[in-house]
Amino acid sequence: MINGTNFIGSTPSGQGEETLFSYNPVDGSAFAESFAVAGTDEINQAVDKAVSAFQAYQSISNQAKADFLDAIADEIMALGDELVERACGESGLPAGRIQGERGRTCNQLKMFASLVREGSWVEAIIDTAIPDRAPVPKPDLRMMQIPIGPVVVFGASNFPLAFSTAGGDTASALAAGNPVIVKGHESHLGTNELVSKAILAAAAKTGMPEGVYSMVNGGIPVGQQLVKHPGVKAVGFTGSLRGGRALFDLANQREEPIPVYAEMGSINPTFLMPEKLGEDPEGLGKSFAGSVTLGVGQFCTNPGLLVGVKSEALDTFSKSLADGLAGATGTMLNAKIAESYYQHRDALLNEAGVAHEGNTEKAEGNTARALTAIVSASAFLENPRLHEEIFGPFTLLVVCDSAAEMELIAAGLQGQLTGTLVATENDLTQNDTVVKNLQQKVGRILFNGVPTGVEVCPAMHHGGPYPASTNAKYTSVGTTAISRFTRPVSYQNWPDRLLPAELQRDNPLGIWRLVNGERTKS
Amino acid sequence: MINGTNFIGSTPSGQGEETLFSYNPVDGSAFAESFAVAGTDEINQAVDKAVSAFQAYQSISNQAKADFLDAIADEIMALGDELVERACGESGLPAGRIQGERGRTCNQLKMFASLVREGSWVEAIIDTAIPDRAPVPKPDLRMMQIPIGPVVVFGASNFPLAFSTAGGDTASALAAGNPVIVKGHESHLGTNELVSKAILAAAAKTGMPEGVYSMVNGGIPVGQQLVKHPGVKAVGFTGSLRGGRALFDLANQREEPIPVYAEMGSINPTFLMPEKLGEDPEGLGKSFAGSVTLGVGQFCTNPGLLVGVKSEALDTFSKSLADGLAGATGTMLNAKIAESYYQHRDALLNEAGVAHEGNTEKAEGNTARALTAIVSASAFLENPRLHEEIFGPFTLLVVCDSAAEMELIAAGLQGQLTGTLVATENDLTQNDTVVKNLQQKVGRILFNGVPTGVEVCPAMHHGGPYPASTNAKYTSVGTTAISRFTRPVSYQNWPDRLLPAELQRDNPLGIWRLVNGERTKS
Repeated sequence: MINGTNFIGSTPSGQGEETLFSYNPVDGSAFAESFAVAGTDEINQAVDKAVSAFQAYQSISNQAKADFLDAIADEIMALGDELVERACGESGLPAGRIQGERGRTCNQLKMFASLVREGSWVEAIIDTAIPDRAPVPKPDLRMMQIPIGPVVVFGASNFPLAFSTAGGDTASALAAGNPVIVKGHESHLGTNELVSKAILAAAAKTGMPEGVYSMVNGGIPVGQQLVKHPGVKAVGFTGSLRGGRALFDLANQREEPIPVYAEMGSINPTFLMPEKLGEDPEGLGKSFAGSVTLGVGQFCTNPGLLVGVKSEALDTFSKSLADGLAGATGTMLNAKIAESYYQHRDALLNEAGVAHEGNTEKAEGNTARALTAIVSASAFLENPRLHEEIFGPFTLLVVCDSAAEMELIAAGLQGQLTGTLVATENDLTQNDTVVKNLQQKVGRILFNGVPTGVEVCPAMHHGGPYPASTNAKYTSVGTTAISRFTRPVSYQNWPDRLLPAELQRDNPLGIWRLVNGERTKS
Repeated sequence: MINGTNFIGSTPSGQGEETLFSYNPVDGSAFAESFAVAGTDEINQAVDKAVSAFQAYQSISNQAKADFLDAIADEIMALGDELVERACGESGLPAGRIQGERGRTCNQLKMFASLVREGSWVEAIIDTAIPDRAPVPKPDLRMMQIPIGPVVVFGASNFPLAFSTAGGDTASALAAGNPVIVKGHESHLGTNELVSKAILAAAAKTGMPEGVYSMVNGGIPVGQQLVKHPGVKAVGFTGSLRGGRALFDLANQREEPIPVYAEMGSINPTFLMPEKLGEDPEGLGKSFAGSVTLGVGQFCTNPGLLVGVKSEALDTFSKSLADGLAGATGTMLNAKIAESYYQHRDALLNEAGVAHEGNTEKAEGNTARALTAIVSASAFLENPRLHEEIFGPFTLLVVCDSAAEMELIAAGLQGQLTGTLVATENDLTQNDTVVKNLQQKVGRILFNGVPTGVEVCPAMHHGGPYPASTNAKYTSVGTTAISRFTRPVSYQNWPDRLLPAELQRDNPLGIWRLVNGERTKS
């Protein structure tokens, strides 16, 4: 059951007059419930509660924090079909996809629970004293990561569970010991409320401090007020370049600037190398058609740019790709995204030198039609508008005259989440400069396969140089995402029994530490 | 011998009309040589050379990079007395101090050489494939830190060697695999030239690519042009809040924002706890007088704020401190700093409720007189101007009525490099809230001792929440400083023999890695 309130800590609150509705993108119908937009007082109360919760939450035991994260996963599963139906209804995504995403969301929560329980994530470094060192004694220094304070999370439209209310940003911020305030995504207000209730139920069951989690609804002004609040210490965001950059700018203009970890998408360039392409151009065309249309092309890792050298095989690939996309349609996440897809795609089709075949007519309602277009490398190189992301089931094939043109394209790219080499090993060694240039632009580099599909594991980097993200050093997926919401502190000559357990002489938690230059658990 | 040119890569260059001179702060006399300010073309050439050098330098062997760093240390030592005399002449610091700082500078270079030679600093994480996992195979993912590209370094006036031309920023940026462009500090132009030549000699001897190091002279416009150049990927800075914030703002306004790691000083609060203070108030007063006047108070970690609860012991401490400071004078680093010291100190003395004893008269030339002032906790709490750093041999003693007022002061502080508890263990447990509040504000927390003296080691954190630095996650001292100038990249399903050695199956470098969740060298 949906109430349409904000949650200021555990307290439902809907003081404002202004309301929002959520819509089913399939037929454009509104859901019955109205959602109260949070007012200034409610936002301030949420941050105040988070600041206050931080005093206790920052130093609760690893075990208690891990139990909280596990309990969130359990509570999400306990929502059962109500959550799946609502998420499908608000996103237009099929039940199988939402069930899979729910599994991924719970796995992420459990992964961070395990990480916290194990304990080595604090990166303890210990240099013991040398009291008789000349000319001055060497002090005892012990460093570890500590939480930073309240974190504001802006979820994504395209993953209403895994990159939203209880997604990777929330899970990693809570795991690090920070209270979280979620700004509910306007595209899935009901889903957000259900998941928020699951988080609050888990917090209550595991005895977490009041204010460890709050959720407020609203548009841009609500988000801005949160980011400007002095009590907020970091922001996690997944969405558009425009949205992410606006928050980044706002956070940097604060008297005390705070980090905004924004993952803002990418065109995910794929280079089709001649030897590999020649093996099965038709099959590769089909495979990329599948990747381009996955989730109606609404993935951050959607392959929006394909690059190959003019050849018969490339023609075959191109035709197979176009055939695979012809007639492929799907409901987009919301009306704004559908409108934006056609608008940006059509603008690109009108750029000089861009050719295409297939049906470009706008489909009914929020339905997107998949499409591919072709442009020469020279036209691509001189037109930065062709480098911009078209969010949806579209990809641009760039045809080079030579391998040297491929190198120029790799060198001229903006920052990207991923780069893919469709290649044999021989192709890689033959095109070393393309590989080197591409590596400098991306957060993840793939040898064959497709970039869609982001494994959740320690070695995943889901981020990349700007404009893929606002900070190339950090990932929003995988265990290292936790480090976005921590900072180091060094204890000098601190009494052993008053140190955090992670830094005590006897290593009571049995974690990995760097002690006098040696990695050890003892 | 000083030529007064810039170095565009290894090429001396002095095309501009505009010149700078460097001065001896002791008598205000100018050194003979004029230094050419770099023009737009020279700056662009320096960045172009760095971009081009990066293509080779980013992937040279650990051994070669380490040899380069060691060679810089050797070349600096080979400068002999010429360097010591020039650095003393340009800074007003005594020869013993400069010799010590030279040793520290060389040790830092060698520390990063060892770090790079050992190799584990790349934080390799490996998750191997599970090809038969359902519903989708798990890919092979391997992540490591890679260099980011040309780094611009702005040195500090107060450490003309250890935090300047070949200081920690340059050493860590080069160690990570990035070319460096130093903007020479206007306060020690000759020292900077000598050290730049040492770096270039080392680069030539060890066969580093042309452009791996450049140095340009000039004022604010030269610095701004460097930070705005699209080829520059990060900035290291040590200096004032105003200077650091200006560069931070400029870098964030770029089309592609880049990180500015600015260490901007601090008032380094020290809390004098009753039990410990009672043990030896007079001795503690003397000890803090020594810390306040060390290097004429021109340390980032100078204890500028002392906080205690009203007591007889605090009176004794206060008198001993004042006595220790009375008559203490010293030459400041340059005329601007000396002028600024008196101006800011005198403004603070005129704030409501601030009392002082002792000679406040401006001394001759660039000589600073040490001083302490006293204010009540209530006056301090309501006046943010009393929280600002006075760069020089000055400290403000805040007298609290109660332990509760101490808690408020700790809670109301801005971000700090350090916080010190002069305390017994019993004092710490009795004042748990002060400790907790203080820890949230600082990068390093000390149990007794004085904050001046920054050990160079892995567990050192020399940074802190804003305004101590622009990024609380990073240190400018110690081995982890290298991570400011790297970013992670993940390789997915990459052929083993084409992976960087750090990520290959057989671990040919024998480094520590996290493999399928286990830390191992095998």
